Amino acid sequence: MRPQVVLFGDSITEQSFRSGGWGAALADTYTRKADIVNRGYSGYNTRWALFLLHQLFPFDSTKPPVAATIFFGANDAALLGRTSERQHVPIEEYKENLRKVVHHLKECSPTMLVVLITPPPVDEVGRRDYARSVYGEKAMELPERTNEVTGLYAKQCVELAKEMGLCSIDLWSKMQETEGWQKKFLSDGLHLTPEGNAVVHEEVVRVFNESWLAAAEMPYDFPSHSEIDGKNPEKAFQQQCI
Amino acid sequence: MRPQVVLFGDSITEQSFRSGGWGAALADTYTRKADIVNRGYSGYNTRWALFLLHQLFPFDSTKPPVAATIFFGANDAALLGRTSERQHVPIEEYKENLRKVVHHLKECSPTMLVVLITPPPVDEVGRRDYARSVYGEKAMELPERTNEVTGLYAKQCVELAKEMGLCSIDLWSKMQETEGWQKKFLSDGLHLTPEGNAVVHEEVVRVFNESWLAAAEMPYDFPSHSEIDGKNPEKAFQQQCI
Repeated sequence: MRPQVVLFGDSITEQSFRSGGWGAALADTYTRKADIVNRGYSGYNTRWALFLLHQLFPFDSTKPPVAATIFFGANDAALLGRTSERQHVPIEEYKENLRKVVHHLKECSPTMLVVLITPPPVDEVGRRDYARSVYGEKAMELPERTNEVTGLYAKQCVELAKEMGLCSIDLWSKMQETEGWQKKFLSDGLHLTPEGNAVVHEEVVRVFNESWLAAAEMPYDFPSHSEIDGKNPEKAFQQQCI
Repeated sequence: MRPQVVLFGDSITEQSFRSGGWGAALADTYTRKADIVNRGYSGYNTRWALFLLHQLFPFDSTKPPVAATIFFGANDAALLGRTSERQHVPIEEYKENLRKVVHHLKECSPTMLVVLITPPPVDEVGRRDYARSVYGEKAMELPERTNEVTGLYAKQCVELAKEMGLCSIDLWSKMQETEGWQKKFLSDGLHLTPEGNAVVHEEVVRVFNESWLAAAEMPYDFPSHSEIDGKNPEKAFQQQCI
């Protein structure tokens, strides 16, 4: 049946089927051609993601995904000594964890199209405003994530992709090319607005198109209704090209 | 791994992952709990749907879907002698085809929660305006579908559900309870606006909740990040309740 594309990541992946979400948009782009499977885990860093690998991507699967996006780093880059330090993963370990994820996926299926996505940029002002709106006076004044540090993680992600010969999407850099990215693309300084989701969708489609997973070139799993002869429908279904 | 819920239907299902779509909203409602699988086939009627059954729902599947929505009728109810007559299926056959689909699904898995959804109402004015916008002067003056005839199909769908002891959603009636349903819920007299999609999403969630598929009562497939001890993450993953 239809090939599967797995979106593996943190909350930015988990929330990707909300209204305007990049996961839902991808499902629509690949409608009747591929299934987009959401494996986003809110709050997870790459260290915790490793625990999921064998169950999400078993080696003995008879039909492993044809493609996967790996989209971690926003939590790994949380700073030590701040509110979210529990999620922090040292930058060298982040890179090595990503490498382990890629190795695992390639062991599942050497032909799997693996795309690494960097964390998006962080808007520290938006993040502070959000913390105040939730925690009020108790909100810490010092940011739990900074754009600069997240940028270092993004750089490691892109470097790893180069080392391993994979495609990557440098979302951290891409989003900052647009003026006003802080409010245009981020809803709380970290998660994505519908416009931010549209950037991810566009970039993933671009990379898939440049690889061998262009929706336009993939067959429908069953005939288009316009190909079905109303008086002799069997014919269209005998000729189907699954 | 996660249970699957299949959405089987025509274009109103196929388009359900567009922005504001009911399928994407359902995927979000069941995030980290169930996979929502889109098996919508634009333009299909129940007669053509039968050709897909064995491939979409093989009897020997080791993990059949736990639930399915069956959402056909909008094309079956196209009128003879009009633009879309190729898609027309007589009303008795429509009911029998739906029965065959249900029998097939129940043979796949006797415990599968099968929900029948009637076609939405038809706004004949909206449909005519749409035809004129696409075909201009060549658009036929007589409607290819009428609300009255579609209502007869909807009635058969609800009756079949009663006969078979299944849940159903009488979308045709439900939508017409709201004043201005013609433009509020329908974009071209037949397909759904985001508000119309929201009605379907709400109704499906209501029926699933009233059955045994309430998202609130389903476990996450892996621990919430808040349950993971940063210093001893193994513990949370040993206790996971898949």
